[in-house]
Amino acid sequence: MRFLDACNRRPVDATPIWIMRQAGRYLPEYRAIKEKLSFIEMCEDPATAAEVTLQPLKRFELDAAIIFADILLPLTGMGIGFHFAKTGGPVIEKPVRSAADVAGLRPFDPLEHTPYLMEAIKLVRAEVDGKVPLIGFSGAPFTLASYIVEGGGSKNYEHVKTMMFSDPGTFITLMEAITEAVVDYLNAQIDAGAQVVQLFDSWVGCLSPYDYQRFALPYVQQIIARVKGRVPIIYFANGATSMLTHVAQAGADVYGVDWRIEIDRAWDQIGHDKGVQGNLDPLTLFGSQAAIEERVQDILDRVGERPGHIFNLGHGILPTAPIDNVKFLVDTVHRLSARS
Amino acid sequence: MRFLDACNRRPVDATPIWIMRQAGRYLPEYRAIKEKLSFIEMCEDPATAAEVTLQPLKRFELDAAIIFADILLPLTGMGIGFHFAKTGGPVIEKPVRSAADVAGLRPFDPLEHTPYLMEAIKLVRAEVDGKVPLIGFSGAPFTLASYIVEGGGSKNYEHVKTMMFSDPGTFITLMEAITEAVVDYLNAQIDAGAQVVQLFDSWVGCLSPYDYQRFALPYVQQIIARVKGRVPIIYFANGATSMLTHVAQAGADVYGVDWRIEIDRAWDQIGHDKGVQGNLDPLTLFGSQAAIEERVQDILDRVGERPGHIFNLGHGILPTAPIDNVKFLVDTVHRLSARS
Repeated sequence: MRFLDACNRRPVDATPIWIMRQAGRYLPEYRAIKEKLSFIEMCEDPATAAEVTLQPLKRFELDAAIIFADILLPLTGMGIGFHFAKTGGPVIEKPVRSAADVAGLRPFDPLEHTPYLMEAIKLVRAEVDGKVPLIGFSGAPFTLASYIVEGGGSKNYEHVKTMMFSDPGTFITLMEAITEAVVDYLNAQIDAGAQVVQLFDSWVGCLSPYDYQRFALPYVQQIIARVKGRVPIIYFANGATSMLTHVAQAGADVYGVDWRIEIDRAWDQIGHDKGVQGNLDPLTLFGSQAAIEERVQDILDRVGERPGHIFNLGHGILPTAPIDNVKFLVDTVHRLSARS
Repeated sequence: MRFLDACNRRPVDATPIWIMRQAGRYLPEYRAIKEKLSFIEMCEDPATAAEVTLQPLKRFELDAAIIFADILLPLTGMGIGFHFAKTGGPVIEKPVRSAADVAGLRPFDPLEHTPYLMEAIKLVRAEVDGKVPLIGFSGAPFTLASYIVEGGGSKNYEHVKTMMFSDPGTFITLMEAITEAVVDYLNAQIDAGAQVVQLFDSWVGCLSPYDYQRFALPYVQQIIARVKGRVPIIYFANGATSMLTHVAQAGADVYGVDWRIEIDRAWDQIGHDKGVQGNLDPLTLFGSQAAIEERVQDILDRVGERPGHIFNLGHGILPTAPIDNVKFLVDTVHRLSARS
């Protein structure tokens, strides 16, 4: 399978592509299900999660499936209640802001707390086996800590950084608790059948390199060291394109790259002994097909013949992205990268 | 004055510091005025704008004043109405989205449309002359275009990028119109007495380097070429720390740097024949004074003895920033950087 070959930096017949949030709201068949069930209900029902996971693969020649889930799912087991607001964003019912709050967290047990996810992974594997690999995933510790401390999405990360800069001991205790949860969560997904795992560090780009190295990277390194060797691990530090030399110390096999840097410059900084994933601006899908093709060609030209590139958007696809352009993107990547 | 010396890369007795949004809501004396007047009313009354400009200089040993204004002020003269919502964000009354909308824009005349700003600059100069220099400023074209096309702040820049990627001719016509306005605006501020000007490209970090070079940088270059040589020009491309080698082609004397990169690595990419401004994470002000001092020291250590560094936050100060820590920051920068 060309996706796994690329993860292992082996030559491929054409560049593999998948799309972050490929199972999502830009698909009418997804929205049809979402009208009947809440996001959490969709995750918690293995048959529905499996169906949604497979939806984009029926439309497009994607080279991987990614299990339908949310990075916040482990929180419930840790004793952190949350729901999704009408506007779509997560709301943590009682943000974790003090040493006492952190001390009150419970250990997360993936089989006890998220059995539905492991079941969904098994269902999807049975469907796609031998065709495309299945990606499992987790949020990375800083990103999960941001949600937990801020109480949801955030513009300035005021609460989590206040904790980091004024009570680093409490922050570190929180990061250690999350690290344990993520290690178990990823290993359980691999046990269930995930053939690749991705760590999403969606908000880590709000940190300076000084604080990234002290407060975020060590926990990612720990997780990867404790999962390593079973399946390829992709680490996506979104918005951290100006500190890739640090990001690349995480120990991953493949590094996700957002669109704010040329992929060849990114790869030079990450190291050619690792794979890279990316990095088309997701908004390119809102342009003309000529504009899409021009920018796909630029990325492929920059990568050249070096094995180890997985094509993706530089961030998740937007709910309003035109489906015709998604199909055009997938086909264009394959067409322009085909090796004779 | 050490600020102007640093702009010109001459040795200084201590590193100069100013703070983006230093005249702002974190000051109770600012909020007292804001209770009585709207933001626009504050800008349009020269005496009030001058008073607010001077407020932070009475509290802290800042090395520059920056005229109180908003980057959207020229829009009214261009025929684009806007107001500030209760939540603080700007609302463009009729977003510019089509070729016809762009064709309907009027030429901006700074003396006719923003005479109050020029008057405020004269009032402030009379107060601070010989003590600290006065900075004038403008939004850079892409950032202004984003507001104008999106209709306000934006998360994903869907409208402006749709125009850029599907109707680049219209987008370029818009950028050209904004470029003319900004050239005249900055020159008028310099005529009125601004001793330094800063171009704020607050949102340009949402672009790929591919599109930055095609759709944003050429207009910044044009503006700087047409203002150059009169006073030092600072260009701050916020969030563009992963493409500083491109940003540094703008032609500015000094480059603002956000906190997502080490300042010495940024300076290496910008070129040591230019000055740099930055780059403390604004959220550091929410930490302990020990945490602040540690991070100030790291920045000063990285800069070392090379002349041409202006200390600043990596982005604007937040309204909730503790005032005591602002004073501590300003004094700490001077203390730790003092040359005997």
